Amino acid sequence: MPKNLDLNFTLAEYGDRLAATRREMARRDIDCLVVVDPSNMAWLTGYDGWSFYTHQCVIVSQDAEPVWWGRGIDAAGALRTCYIDADSIIGYPDHFVQSTERHPMDHLSQLLRKLGLDRGSIGVEMENYYFSAAAFRSLQTHLPSAKLVDATALVNWQRIVKSEQELSYMRSAARIVEGMHAHIYDIIERGMVKSNLAAEIFKSGIAGQGEHWGDYPAILPMLPTGMDATAPHLTWDNSVLKQGDITFFEIAGCHKRYHCPLSRTISLGQPPQKYLDAEKAVLDAMHAGLENAKPGKLAEDVAIAFFDTLETHGFKKDNRTGYCIGLSYPPDWGERTMSLRRGDKTELQKNMTFHFMPALWLDDGGLEITESVVITDSGYERLAEVEQRLLVKD
Amino acid sequence: MPKNLDLNFTLAEYGDRLAATRREMARRDIDCLVVVDPSNMAWLTGYDGWSFYTHQCVIVSQDAEPVWWGRGIDAAGALRTCYIDADSIIGYPDHFVQSTERHPMDHLSQLLRKLGLDRGSIGVEMENYYFSAAAFRSLQTHLPSAKLVDATALVNWQRIVKSEQELSYMRSAARIVEGMHAHIYDIIERGMVKSNLAAEIFKSGIAGQGEHWGDYPAILPMLPTGMDATAPHLTWDNSVLKQGDITFFEIAGCHKRYHCPLSRTISLGQPPQKYLDAEKAVLDAMHAGLENAKPGKLAEDVAIAFFDTLETHGFKKDNRTGYCIGLSYPPDWGERTMSLRRGDKTELQKNMTFHFMPALWLDDGGLEITESVVITDSGYERLAEVEQRLLVKD
Repeated sequence: MPKNLDLNFTLAEYGDRLAATRREMARRDIDCLVVVDPSNMAWLTGYDGWSFYTHQCVIVSQDAEPVWWGRGIDAAGALRTCYIDADSIIGYPDHFVQSTERHPMDHLSQLLRKLGLDRGSIGVEMENYYFSAAAFRSLQTHLPSAKLVDATALVNWQRIVKSEQELSYMRSAARIVEGMHAHIYDIIERGMVKSNLAAEIFKSGIAGQGEHWGDYPAILPMLPTGMDATAPHLTWDNSVLKQGDITFFEIAGCHKRYHCPLSRTISLGQPPQKYLDAEKAVLDAMHAGLENAKPGKLAEDVAIAFFDTLETHGFKKDNRTGYCIGLSYPPDWGERTMSLRRGDKTELQKNMTFHFMPALWLDDGGLEITESVVITDSGYERLAEVEQRLLVKD
Repeated sequence: MPKNLDLNFTLAEYGDRLAATRREMARRDIDCLVVVDPSNMAWLTGYDGWSFYTHQCVIVSQDAEPVWWGRGIDAAGALRTCYIDADSIIGYPDHFVQSTERHPMDHLSQLLRKLGLDRGSIGVEMENYYFSAAAFRSLQTHLPSAKLVDATALVNWQRIVKSEQELSYMRSAARIVEGMHAHIYDIIERGMVKSNLAAEIFKSGIAGQGEHWGDYPAILPMLPTGMDATAPHLTWDNSVLKQGDITFFEIAGCHKRYHCPLSRTISLGQPPQKYLDAEKAVLDAMHAGLENAKPGKLAEDVAIAFFDTLETHGFKKDNRTGYCIGLSYPPDWGERTMSLRRGDKTELQKNMTFHFMPALWLDDGGLEITESVVITDSGYERLAEVEQRLLVKD
């Protein structure tokens, strides 16, 4: 281990994570796991860097220590952020980067062969931003003796129950997102240019709150107004806020890559009755949903209670109303395991963490009042405390 | 076309782009192209939103108008940002999102069948962050009558020569990055917490400069100091700057998704001779490289002249020294076509744009002094004007 390495977790905790991953590999008869999801790489080893735009992975097998593999110039970053010994940090030459002649995964196959891991069952994360169709094709071509099996989200599922240290980072993220919402409410006003408002949100989120310094969130702040808020994922421009505008703020605090998302909606001046009705519907339905947020209930119980109550208010919604959160990298702050939606029968357990996301996108705007929660012994705890209503600024 | 749609380019320019793409498809005998790269989607249609974390694409064929396909709730965003008629904006149901039972691409196959595009040769972007191995597998399974062919970067290559309107957006981005570097130099000082410095960089970049409002860059600001700067891609924490620290700032201005990256390095106090030597080497070598930045020269000519001159100063470097820039989405602001490196024989043409990136990562820190340039009739033009040297702040 490099000297003075300031890891985010104890070596014991990393050891537990590795053991859990190996148990699941054994259960599925996977001899070797190629972990490309940057969140999984970080969770297993501590590795942290904006290097996921080139191919990289952590190789997990039953017997040998994990191996970090990536672009040569990023090996220095691996040395500085993960607990893996220098001997097990392997860089590939730069002529593999974005080449039309050779694929970095060709090099990985050679390495697996050298490590004696090129046969048996090799798990790969088939559904991942960082495992392209071409990456898979390269491994298929160069590992003729191996059986490639789908291990999508194998590691993600080991991450669903958070440790106390993880929760502590998420609480730091919660302090940050509280500060971001307070800052937005302070400064938002008629005549403000949206890009300036976005700039203030970034500043508040990255500066953080005292010792809770801000890391970059895996999704950037959304702050659509009016008709743009009929769509969930439009980013800002230089339009100017005016009286009567309703804007939702879908943002997250982030600390050491752990997220606390939280959305609120602000109306400049009194909102129309329709939005007050929508607010009442969302809050009633959210509380009905959250009554089911406790150990022993299923993920879908939260969603169904929410949908059913929402419908009594005349709103019909069928998309998912939440998902697991924690450690993440762009482009998504969800953990991509459980979803709060009909059909998801995962049983809730203590220290699972969710973004409960009961958004309503109407025909002329959107309303988002959301909560990030941690499941406790007998219910749930809100991670961040921000006034739970449609905010009005005169 | 939706009323009052404020497109970033004329319909004529989008028409030219589509025509160029279709010509290349015809040349390669591709009947239908499934474009998943968000930059390519935006370049072809104007579509803009942080929705690329779920599967989406633009379908291009020879005869019919392009079709936008994506998550149902994002169709509203497509209506508001791209020129495509509502009839050709197709959303898939939310139960496809991050499901373990069904893949969104299953739905795409159905759509292609309905459009009569499920046979013949279908081009897919095999090497892309947003075309997973599982996406490819789904298409293989559900399109038995089609031949799937690799069309990675087919559209990217149509983007390499910039239009005047594109250059105008990149010049806006250049004004923004100039402002960011000026702001950094103004405020950097001993005792400053890195996350606060990062917060100020974000604020400056997103607020922009007057009418040049800031969009989010496809790579977030890097500002590693000292040993962390021996690695290229580590992000900030809450460490405190001290006298003698050398920090490089790898940042970009961004306007309407067009980028102008530019790196500078700042030493707090007089830098050691070793860094002054490195500065001289980089600047000499950069000028030697840029003498080759003109129409008719090859991409590798720039790199080779740079490497050769660098070597006369005792520095050996083999990774690439630059790449095409323009329109981009996370996780990479490069266009992923040409690279300035040995072996790249692409001929330079007027209005190509590059980030010339002659970074040196030393054993105890890093030095980055880079330039974004546009190729002119007879040479090149620096996009941004920032003092071209190792900056010293006392």
